[in-house]
Amino acid sequence: MKKTIILFSLSIFCLTACSPTEKKAKSLPNTPFTPTLAEQNPLKRQWAEPIESYQIKNIPLAKNPNGKPKNIILLIGDGMGLTQIYAAMTANRGKLNIENCSHIGLIKTYASNAYITDSAAGATAFACGEKTYNGAIGVDAEGKSLKTILEIAEENGLATGMVATSSITHATPACFIAHQKSRRMEEEIAADFLNTDIDVFIGGGKKFFERSANGRNLLPELAAKGYQVLDNMNEIAKVKQGKLAGFTAQEQNPKMSEGRGEMLLQSTKTALNILSQNKKGFFLMVEGSQIDWGGHDNNLSYVVQETIDFDKVIGEVLEFAAKDGETLVIITADHETGGLTLVGGNIKEGKVEGAFSTGGHTSVIVPVYAYGCQADKFSGIYENTDIFHKMMAVFGFTSR
Amino acid sequence: MKKTIILFSLSIFCLTACSPTEKKAKSLPNTPFTPTLAEQNPLKRQWAEPIESYQIKNIPLAKNPNGKPKNIILLIGDGMGLTQIYAAMTANRGKLNIENCSHIGLIKTYASNAYITDSAAGATAFACGEKTYNGAIGVDAEGKSLKTILEIAEENGLATGMVATSSITHATPACFIAHQKSRRMEEEIAADFLNTDIDVFIGGGKKFFERSANGRNLLPELAAKGYQVLDNMNEIAKVKQGKLAGFTAQEQNPKMSEGRGEMLLQSTKTALNILSQNKKGFFLMVEGSQIDWGGHDNNLSYVVQETIDFDKVIGEVLEFAAKDGETLVIITADHETGGLTLVGGNIKEGKVEGAFSTGGHTSVIVPVYAYGCQADKFSGIYENTDIFHKMMAVFGFTSR
Repeated sequence: MKKTIILFSLSIFCLTACSPTEKKAKSLPNTPFTPTLAEQNPLKRQWAEPIESYQIKNIPLAKNPNGKPKNIILLIGDGMGLTQIYAAMTANRGKLNIENCSHIGLIKTYASNAYITDSAAGATAFACGEKTYNGAIGVDAEGKSLKTILEIAEENGLATGMVATSSITHATPACFIAHQKSRRMEEEIAADFLNTDIDVFIGGGKKFFERSANGRNLLPELAAKGYQVLDNMNEIAKVKQGKLAGFTAQEQNPKMSEGRGEMLLQSTKTALNILSQNKKGFFLMVEGSQIDWGGHDNNLSYVVQETIDFDKVIGEVLEFAAKDGETLVIITADHETGGLTLVGGNIKEGKVEGAFSTGGHTSVIVPVYAYGCQADKFSGIYENTDIFHKMMAVFGFTSR
Repeated sequence: MKKTIILFSLSIFCLTACSPTEKKAKSLPNTPFTPTLAEQNPLKRQWAEPIESYQIKNIPLAKNPNGKPKNIILLIGDGMGLTQIYAAMTANRGKLNIENCSHIGLIKTYASNAYITDSAAGATAFACGEKTYNGAIGVDAEGKSLKTILEIAEENGLATGMVATSSITHATPACFIAHQKSRRMEEEIAADFLNTDIDVFIGGGKKFFERSANGRNLLPELAAKGYQVLDNMNEIAKVKQGKLAGFTAQEQNPKMSEGRGEMLLQSTKTALNILSQNKKGFFLMVEGSQIDWGGHDNNLSYVVQETIDFDKVIGEVLEFAAKDGETLVIITADHETGGLTLVGGNIKEGKVEGAFSTGGHTSVIVPVYAYGCQADKFSGIYENTDIFHKMMAVFGFTSR
């Protein structure tokens, strides 16, 4: 049944969708297309399952709003448009941690070759500052490698890290560290991790490291480079220093509803513990990967649960930044997924009713939320590529 | 045929919709309900008719960003959520005047008695700073009159004005000047204009002044109060000083597609000419009323044409503020209408494809765009009622 869903991806929205199941399509070229229920009836209204509400953190105003940030934490909610945020806010009785952000921007997300971006072109825009084609991983519209903000941070002596609820080789994190013509080349993307000195990465995708391009097993290579290679969340959470390759799943991590628990929160805390030891500062990218998958599935409960999980991480990160006083936090999305609109609800009861218009992505501008040092630089309406240029400017980096 | 549409409004979204046809429903209680095409098939994808692209204005950074504003111009795009903006931006080949706004906010729009607001509760929030019930005109949740920002500006010696493409007694403008239990009481709302010293108002709705509550004809009363009472756009556009009651239609103004032309632009210029003569400053509210009606009709061309018309006014207003240097411009929406999502397009060709999920309003947060003196105060995520409180604070008003 899963297989039949896939061909549609291949034939139509392969470049705009990034469901974890998509990759399997390559091996099923002759399976006839049967649309999913969502594709047959994408408008079907639905209520989200209620969530247990949580107290949001009361984050003070930034201590040093005009100072040069030592650290940047970029949080990407994949597929997290404005409606996804408000759906989660409604579910949590009207409040989210993200509301502590003092400055708001709006970014245009289109790709170089498409009105509607995929996550690869979207993340390459953030990571490298150039519009590129859908599917591109850290390469420009002609396929030429582009230096990423993570690589530039490394060159400047900063510690670097990435955390995701997808495979760590999935499109969004991949664009910050790899250079490949296609997002589907996850084995090659895994090998690209070895070309960098990233300090910590935590996510799924162990299998792409075990059986990487050209039959390489990258796990011993990572160990030889000094990484603590772990595949148990409890052990990962205990790491306080050194280099860390943390694998939380063979491929994708489970959904929140399937017991992922505090994987993203614990991984982010671990990354912050490790990275904050670097006196020169750090760059950390954290992705809430599965908000997008909830949108592709036209499953409002999935969207809400993943956005809520991400918002808890946002609370933790904002608390870190507020205490630290030398950190800039940027929260944004690569695009909106699902064409979600909110047609009913009740804030007191945490009830929210949505309708989806597509199984793919949409073109709408998405918000940027910023807090901390020079957060004001992220106000206004601009291109998604300006996220890179603004990060470069506030870090004071000029090299490319 | 129109009549049959209406009953649905009455029975279900009377409180959330504000189509100009809605009012007629009262006299048709026994007409059976037949859903419109949009209501039967609200997801139907549609392309907007192309528009003639225009050059956006290149507005310099505000001269005096931290100064106290002498003037506030509040522009309300009724039903203008983020997707409406991006649909129009796409249609105009990727650029709008609104992009010149330096600061962005996001507001929560819910009403005191409903998750999804109507224009009356939404505009009362902006005008008076309190959440109220859907349908309320300048009164609180218990029906008690609330002083409006326009009335407070008058008390403080400022000139005041309003311009709209609807009847000037329609929900949004009404909330800035009238105090009535229901938006449907347009004859009573018209009479409330005489209780104020508003300097200029231009819009439709002449008939509510000619045959106002208790059989009063307000036109001679307006003249006796010193108003130039005009009902011809050419004459209205020539007025440079004095008080002006400008009626551009008996009830609603035509759509852009039906030849409204530059009514909103010319009216706004006229209002600015008159109001800017007051040395103490002014408060002006301008509404792009029919963006909302395009959403209710699930007609993407209508939405785009009305948003484009509004954006041209935004360009004019920003240019005024940039030259003046003592003005704050705030652009926002009361709510999103239609559950519009953008599922296809081409920026170079100005093509945009949308899908609507409802004939009513939706709950999603809507953006605030600010430019000029203390525009930075409008950054962040907050309640729609804070628009009032922030205007009061930057004006330095304390009275209520």
